[in-house]
Amino acid sequence: MPQFLNAADRDFEAAFAALLGMKREDAPDVDAAVAAIIADVRARGDAAVIELTARFDRLELTPETLAFTPAEIAAEVARVSPEDRAALELAAERIRAYHDRQMPPREERWTGPHGESLGWRWGAVSAAGLYVPGGLASYPSSVLMNAIPAKVAGVERLAIACPTPGGAVNPLVLLAAELAGVDEVYRIGGAQAIAALAYGTETIRPVDKITGPGNAYVAAAKRRVFGRVGIDMIAGPSEILVIADRDNDPDWIALDLLSQAEHDESAQSILVTDDADFGRAVAAAVEKRLETLDRRAIAGASWRDYGAVIVARDLEQAAALSNRVAPEHLELCVADPEALAEKITHAGAIFIGAWTPEAIGDYVGGPNHVLPTARSARFSSGLSVMDFLKRTTLARMTPEALAAIGPAAERLANSESLEAHGLSVRARLDRLNFPD
Amino acid sequence: MPQFLNAADRDFEAAFAALLGMKREDAPDVDAAVAAIIADVRARGDAAVIELTARFDRLELTPETLAFTPAEIAAEVARVSPEDRAALELAAERIRAYHDRQMPPREERWTGPHGESLGWRWGAVSAAGLYVPGGLASYPSSVLMNAIPAKVAGVERLAIACPTPGGAVNPLVLLAAELAGVDEVYRIGGAQAIAALAYGTETIRPVDKITGPGNAYVAAAKRRVFGRVGIDMIAGPSEILVIADRDNDPDWIALDLLSQAEHDESAQSILVTDDADFGRAVAAAVEKRLETLDRRAIAGASWRDYGAVIVARDLEQAAALSNRVAPEHLELCVADPEALAEKITHAGAIFIGAWTPEAIGDYVGGPNHVLPTARSARFSSGLSVMDFLKRTTLARMTPEALAAIGPAAERLANSESLEAHGLSVRARLDRLNFPD
Repeated sequence: MPQFLNAADRDFEAAFAALLGMKREDAPDVDAAVAAIIADVRARGDAAVIELTARFDRLELTPETLAFTPAEIAAEVARVSPEDRAALELAAERIRAYHDRQMPPREERWTGPHGESLGWRWGAVSAAGLYVPGGLASYPSSVLMNAIPAKVAGVERLAIACPTPGGAVNPLVLLAAELAGVDEVYRIGGAQAIAALAYGTETIRPVDKITGPGNAYVAAAKRRVFGRVGIDMIAGPSEILVIADRDNDPDWIALDLLSQAEHDESAQSILVTDDADFGRAVAAAVEKRLETLDRRAIAGASWRDYGAVIVARDLEQAAALSNRVAPEHLELCVADPEALAEKITHAGAIFIGAWTPEAIGDYVGGPNHVLPTARSARFSSGLSVMDFLKRTTLARMTPEALAAIGPAAERLANSESLEAHGLSVRARLDRLNFPD
Repeated sequence: MPQFLNAADRDFEAAFAALLGMKREDAPDVDAAVAAIIADVRARGDAAVIELTARFDRLELTPETLAFTPAEIAAEVARVSPEDRAALELAAERIRAYHDRQMPPREERWTGPHGESLGWRWGAVSAAGLYVPGGLASYPSSVLMNAIPAKVAGVERLAIACPTPGGAVNPLVLLAAELAGVDEVYRIGGAQAIAALAYGTETIRPVDKITGPGNAYVAAAKRRVFGRVGIDMIAGPSEILVIADRDNDPDWIALDLLSQAEHDESAQSILVTDDADFGRAVAAAVEKRLETLDRRAIAGASWRDYGAVIVARDLEQAAALSNRVAPEHLELCVADPEALAEKITHAGAIFIGAWTPEAIGDYVGGPNHVLPTARSARFSSGLSVMDFLKRTTLARMTPEALAAIGPAAERLANSESLEAHGLSVRARLDRLNFPD
């Protein structure tokens, strides 16, 4: 059974704080092993990647077979059923349409009070790498969610690293890569794949940014190469918070909670309701569904260890509690969900109204499903085209503008004991005052 | 003498690659010490911070004196000269005006093809912390550059940590904090300050995001608390690249190169020109200025060890070389600098035309001076209001929209073996097909 908390109870604040502070992830410390792998790949390139792939993925590769050929991809993609292809195409189309809207104007430029020109310009990262886990967690939807924003941003070269343990590959992953316009797909994984993407090898050219989920080795490697390349967030175990009033079908809400819980034993599903009876009905519906669910071992462990039903005084308080959690996914199943959404300050994604199950957002809604986990929605955002763009600021002074604001710059430079800074302004001002 | 490279030479490519790959920073490995400090602050709060401040900053504090009082700030600020105040006020006003333009619309919202509503909403980080180094590198301009974007973004609570070794404080730093609207200023520094901001103590409430430069301890601490809070970039040694044709005053360009070199012995200043004679004239002007510059020891070491003069075939090639460097600061001192700017794909900030010395951007230009260093302009941007905002995605389905796209979501969920995801959609579709 999950925790039942009632905001009216005297010990609620302590119990809620404990829920917030719960450590759900016990990541193994693989940092030393990862450092050695990265050093090996930097020193020996392809040879190291090939040896490590043989050891960890039981797959013998050569420099020529590191990447899938177009013919290999076509052969795998041909195995996808028309129904699966249609579903993936619909998802790709809707994700592309949503992310197209995120593109900022290429340039903003305006004239300041002294005739100077100011602004900025956006440009795309030249090359990006996308890590796609192998095996069970090899999700075609994640390929779309990472690759489409990169291509919409204008990334010229997009490479996927996806381990194929024993040679096994998910044809839907390759189809998703094709639909998204991915340029290269490598049969490599783990820290060695991250090192190859960050530093390059004889065969694999380095990229500038690496995104995508992975296991503890991949996460540690991303943290280590951060700075050499850009990375997306280091994802933690994910969570959903549902705010629901009594006028909901308990089974719908139960399934929404379970669709988070089934991901991972360390996932967290929280229901906040203003009706204790409804909370109990949802908990009962969860138990009933757990009897038959394929992934009942995982979902049951998550629900039992980290799940919670919280009874709030009213929806106002429910929103305040949700803001303290800053959940990755937030469902608002109440009579006026738009009004409640206005009270939300921290959440990765909001699913507005009971007709919007979170699972829609995982696949075909359009918004990205790569979202800030572990309360990081307090300070970060889901993946977007902005992750593959960078801004260059622009400034152009006129002699008149330099005359107007240059002396202040010189004064501040001198106050910071940066003499050459001041002189670089003064030399120009002198030309204005004492022209040749 | 700095390196002289000519793109026409046979060994140019190797020499340029070596210049790009140069390791300019030999950061001491302080990670173990930093881990211990963070653990100590988490365990003992104020007591640990106070002990560490006594040890490292020779300053005895109590919980009551951790923060400056308003009266203490007023007394320090009163010592600032009217001229310095006016310069700082002009800088603050121009930085605020520039960053005001970066604010995105609070919400984007549109209706999809099936009546569903999609969009996103921006919100501010609730609380941010700004690290300001003590001593010589305690720059009031950096306070403005970090604090103003935070306040423009709408951060409610902004706390500064600034060590005051032996009690010494820079009144201009406190005035900059006042002008920017900073809410709290603590007399603490080092890894202990980063730990206090990230985890909180009895006296210091935790923040959600930490920005600002610092020494190796501060950088290591920021890397460690990343995830618990957001951080800005980990800044490396900075660099300037100037593209200049022969129609420039060599002394202006020399001062621009030196204004980077004087920051730090590991700073890098590169001139790219299409005229070898002009390149030699600039190098001579640098030597002349180095004879009298206050910081000639630092600037001279930087110029000698990392400086370079590169002669390119033409400006087209100069732009291509600059893009490979991806410099933090780029000056374009050529006849048509706007046309050349169009060819630049990677740079933190562009200073357009010879009347725009880089030093203007450090203080009063308006754009931020916190910029991506060490070639990271390939994938990241300077500090902006976006660093203090985060996006929540919004989706609201209608029954019609769910009927149209739900089956594809169900299909993809099943292909990923995520049964509850599919069921959460199916339960709703069944209601449409078989209403109660």
